[in-house]
Amino acid sequence: MAQKKNVSMAVIKRLPRYFRYLSDLLKMDITRISSKELSKRMGITASQIRQDLNCFGGFGQQGYGYNVEALFNEIAKILGVDKQFTCIIIGAGNMGQALAHYKNFEKRGFKTIGIFDVDPGLIGKKMNGIEVMDMKELEDFVSRNHVDIAMLTVPYEDTRETAERVARLGIRGLWNFSPMDLKLPYDTVIENVHLSDSLMVLGYRIKEIFE
Amino acid sequence: MAQKKNVSMAVIKRLPRYFRYLSDLLKMDITRISSKELSKRMGITASQIRQDLNCFGGFGQQGYGYNVEALFNEIAKILGVDKQFTCIIIGAGNMGQALAHYKNFEKRGFKTIGIFDVDPGLIGKKMNGIEVMDMKELEDFVSRNHVDIAMLTVPYEDTRETAERVARLGIRGLWNFSPMDLKLPYDTVIENVHLSDSLMVLGYRIKEIFE
Repeated sequence: MAQKKNVSMAVIKRLPRYFRYLSDLLKMDITRISSKELSKRMGITASQIRQDLNCFGGFGQQGYGYNVEALFNEIAKILGVDKQFTCIIIGAGNMGQALAHYKNFEKRGFKTIGIFDVDPGLIGKKMNGIEVMDMKELEDFVSRNHVDIAMLTVPYEDTRETAERVARLGIRGLWNFSPMDLKLPYDTVIENVHLSDSLMVLGYRIKEIFE
Repeated sequence: MAQKKNVSMAVIKRLPRYFRYLSDLLKMDITRISSKELSKRMGITASQIRQDLNCFGGFGQQGYGYNVEALFNEIAKILGVDKQFTCIIIGAGNMGQALAHYKNFEKRGFKTIGIFDVDPGLIGKKMNGIEVMDMKELEDFVSRNHVDIAMLTVPYEDTRETAERVARLGIRGLWNFSPMDLKLPYDTVIENVHLSDSLMVLGYRIKEIFE
């Protein structure tokens, strides 16, 4: 059913939002919804919603709107929430620990199976039931376990080298928390999380509105 | 010099990126750069760069390009990096602790002056030199200290109530880490950080490319 060709990143980035809103509607026992009503809740225009969902084959029926459960299930499938992705965390500092304890990830199909660090003070400690391993063991671990995603929370100056090391091991996805737009000469998918950028946008907006 | 009227969120969200790239150029002692070269580095079209910077009065000179330091300083000023924003963290769990230890924030002008939680096991503990206070003390603290931003890392189900409590105190900015698009009937600026969304986009892209 789903046509997934040439879907723009802008649309893809909105999919988790649809997923969240539809999940909330399901929890409220709402079984169907018009694109107009969904639009009001999500703060996206109704025509944008119709366009977005058309990229994947379109799920609405004129005069009926969307069947919430069917749409939710389709989007979950498109996003791969029905799949399991195995993850490792590299960098067991504060952010790495926060990610290790994040409950939502496993619910969404992202299972952490290893945590690594270079700090002898952290190696051997347990985080959410997983023992922190020495970075020296990375290659061996990855050769024995299938790893889809490496979450990188290492210091800025170690990011590029660590990312290349991970990519060379054939890990397909990199989730980068360093304030750089990581690019690699490998066949690796990278998502950057730029917390400082988000905070700076907040600062800008406060300043603009209140000054 | 800067004309800041009606600047779209899309442009604003790109400003921290310009800031990062220009900061890197300065570190490499590069004093001027063409929009074409900047475009190559940033992966944005040159015409997009010219358009973006024109929103703020335009800083380039035909045939010369951009003066890196002047442009960096202007963007820092536009972003308010020269200002100091005071922040409190509400929720001293793993993510709150990670934010408390994030070194980049203070460098960018965001200073954490208080951390709050409801958990007696966390209250009184020091995080990056700041003692965790009881949430009961929030109102008193805010009346005695100017707070620009509340960073919210509380459980999902407590988010809305905590956000309203914070907004009623007149705190102007909310940085929300719960997986919901927080909206409030108050004059408060909200930035949402949706880590699960980012991870789901990564999962989708891995699935699309490799399957």
